[in-house]
Amino acid sequence: MSQKINRQIVLAQRPSGKPESANFRLKESTIPVPEDGQVLCKTIFLSLDPYMRGRMNAGKSYAPPVEIDEVMGAGTVGQVIESKNSKFIAGDLVFGYGGWQEFWVQKGTELKKVDPQLAPISTATGVLGMPGVTAYTGLLNIGKPKKGETVVVAAASGAVGSVVGQIARIKGAQAVGIAGSAEKCKYVTEELGFDACVNHNSPEFTEALKAACPDGIDVYFENVGGKVFETVSPLFNDFARIPVCGIISAYNSTELPPGPNLTPLLMRDILVKRLTFRGFIVWDYATQEKEALSEIANWIKVGKLHYREDIVDGLENAPEAFIGLLEGQNFGKLVVRVSDESAV
Amino acid sequence: MSQKINRQIVLAQRPSGKPESANFRLKESTIPVPEDGQVLCKTIFLSLDPYMRGRMNAGKSYAPPVEIDEVMGAGTVGQVIESKNSKFIAGDLVFGYGGWQEFWVQKGTELKKVDPQLAPISTATGVLGMPGVTAYTGLLNIGKPKKGETVVVAAASGAVGSVVGQIARIKGAQAVGIAGSAEKCKYVTEELGFDACVNHNSPEFTEALKAACPDGIDVYFENVGGKVFETVSPLFNDFARIPVCGIISAYNSTELPPGPNLTPLLMRDILVKRLTFRGFIVWDYATQEKEALSEIANWIKVGKLHYREDIVDGLENAPEAFIGLLEGQNFGKLVVRVSDESAV
Repeated sequence: MSQKINRQIVLAQRPSGKPESANFRLKESTIPVPEDGQVLCKTIFLSLDPYMRGRMNAGKSYAPPVEIDEVMGAGTVGQVIESKNSKFIAGDLVFGYGGWQEFWVQKGTELKKVDPQLAPISTATGVLGMPGVTAYTGLLNIGKPKKGETVVVAAASGAVGSVVGQIARIKGAQAVGIAGSAEKCKYVTEELGFDACVNHNSPEFTEALKAACPDGIDVYFENVGGKVFETVSPLFNDFARIPVCGIISAYNSTELPPGPNLTPLLMRDILVKRLTFRGFIVWDYATQEKEALSEIANWIKVGKLHYREDIVDGLENAPEAFIGLLEGQNFGKLVVRVSDESAV
Repeated sequence: MSQKINRQIVLAQRPSGKPESANFRLKESTIPVPEDGQVLCKTIFLSLDPYMRGRMNAGKSYAPPVEIDEVMGAGTVGQVIESKNSKFIAGDLVFGYGGWQEFWVQKGTELKKVDPQLAPISTATGVLGMPGVTAYTGLLNIGKPKKGETVVVAAASGAVGSVVGQIARIKGAQAVGIAGSAEKCKYVTEELGFDACVNHNSPEFTEALKAACPDGIDVYFENVGGKVFETVSPLFNDFARIPVCGIISAYNSTELPPGPNLTPLLMRDILVKRLTFRGFIVWDYATQEKEALSEIANWIKVGKLHYREDIVDGLENAPEAFIGLLEGQNFGKLVVRVSDESAV
C-alpha cells in the first residue's frame, strides 16, 4: 500500500449549542496494523447521522461520549486492504463502525459484508442500513399502522422519515410528511409517493397540516420535537401511537425553552386520548434486523420503495456537512465519499 | 314508599380552579317513576372519585361534561325499590350510575347485582369496583411488573394506588408508595404491606424516594403528575413503563405552570431511556372486568389484599368531601353513605 498516512477527524472541543468547525480537527496518524482476527479497511463511504450530536456532549446518553482528541464515531462502508481473519480477503466490501477516518481496523466478527449486486454500496449506511432498520422496526413495533390510518412523519425526505412514510403506505395507511422546503415536499409526494407533505417553514404550516390530516393522526413517528411536535399533537386521535426516534430540534439547545411549562398539557393528552409514547433505539430490535433488511431490499427491487442520497466528497468536508445536517440542509441520506472503490 | 322527595346535588356553576361549595346546589325533585325495563333504586353509597372534577368543566374530556343544573354523575350502590324489569325485585342490592341523589331510575341492563356475602356492599364503588379494576388493568396491561422490579405509585393509600401496590407485590415486584402524610405512609407499609412509602409533603421527599428505590423505578403508575412526577422521573430505569391513569395535581389548575418548558426533558428521557407512557381509562379494558373482580375478590378472601374506606355520612356533605378529595384529605376510598339498607 503506497499511502502511509491515515487522515482522521477528531473531536477538538465539545460544542456549546450548535457545533462549529473549530469543534473538529483533522489529524494525521499512521495506518493501523491488524492483529489476529482483525481486518484493515479503507473507508469508501462515511455515514453522517443526527445521533452523533449527542456523542459530542460529555454526559452519558445511551452510549458513551466521544472523548476529546478521539476520532468521531460513525458507520462506514469500506474495502478490505489486509485481512488477518479467514472470513475476509483483500477487496471485500464491508460495513463496520470505522468512524471519521480513511483507514480503520476492526475485528472480523464486527464487520458485515456488503453485496454490491443488491444496491449501491453507500445504501448500507442508509436505506439498507441503520436508518432503514430504524424506520422499519420503530414504525411496525410501536406505530403499528393499520389500513386507512394516518401516519405522520417529520424529516420526511431524510434517511429515516422517507422509509417510514413509504412503509406506512405499503401497509395501507395514509402517509403525510413534514419537510423543510417546498422542493423537499415535492420530492416526498412525487417521488416517494406520500399522500401529502407540508412545509414546516411555511407560515401556513398549521393549517396545511390540518388539511392534510382530515381524519386526525393515528401514528406520529417523532424525529424532531419542538414546534413541529406542538403543531402535530393537537391532531392526535384517541389511541394514537408515537414512536420516539429522535428530537433533532433539541440537540443543539443549550437551555430549555421559556415557559409556560407545557408538560401538564402533554400528560393530559396522554391520559384523555389514551396515547402511547415509546422511545426506542434501533439495536433494541437487533433480532429483527435481518428480516427488516430483506423486506426493504425486496421493496426496492419491486419499485415500492425509493431513496435519495446526499453525497459529499472528501473527509475534510464531513464537519461542515454534519453541521448542515442538524439544520436540515441535507436532502436525502447524508453520506461522505472518502475514497473510491479500488479494483482488486 | 313514604318519602316523596328526591334530594339531589346539581352543578350550580362551573368552578374556576378549586371547586367551592357554591359550585353545588341541593335540589328537591319528585321521585322518578320507572318505565318498562327500568328499575327505581334508593342510593345507599355514593362514590366520589377524582375524575368527576373533569366533568365539571365545559370542555369535552373523554366523557361529556355535566350540564349546569344537572345532577352530578357518580357510581352508586343502591337497593331496588320498584322494578319493571324481570331480572330485579324489590330489595335487590345493585350497582349503577345513579349520581349524587337519593333515588334514581335506570335500565335493568345497566345495573349489576352486588353480592353482600362477598364483601361490604360499599366496596362495589372501590376495591371491587371501578378503582379496583382500574388498578388491575392499568398495572397488568401497561405496567407489566416483573419479579424483582420496582413499582412506584402515588396516592398510595387511595382507592386505586392501594390496589396497584398490593398487586405489584402479589406479582413479585417491590412496591413503593407515595402518600401525603406520615400516618398514611405508616398505613401503606404496615397494613397494606408495601415495601416502603414516602411522604411527598416531607422536606426530605426527594432523598427518601431515592433511598426507597435503590435499583431505580421500572413501573410508575401515574395518578398525580406535577412535582411528584418531577421527583420520580429522574429515577426511571431504561425501558420503564408509565401507565397514565390520572394527573390529580393538575385538575384544579387554571393556568399552566411557569417556565421553563420541561417538555424537551421529558421527550429526551422517553428517547434515551426508551420509556413507554400510555394513558388509559378503565373501560378500555371492559372485557377484563370480570377476571379482574374475581381475582381481586379472591385476594381479599385469602388475606393478600386489604382496603380502607373513608365513609362520610349524608348526601349534603358530598360537596365538601369531594373538595377535600382533590386536596388529598381523604384516607382510603371516599364514599358517602346516603341512606341505610332497608329490611325487605
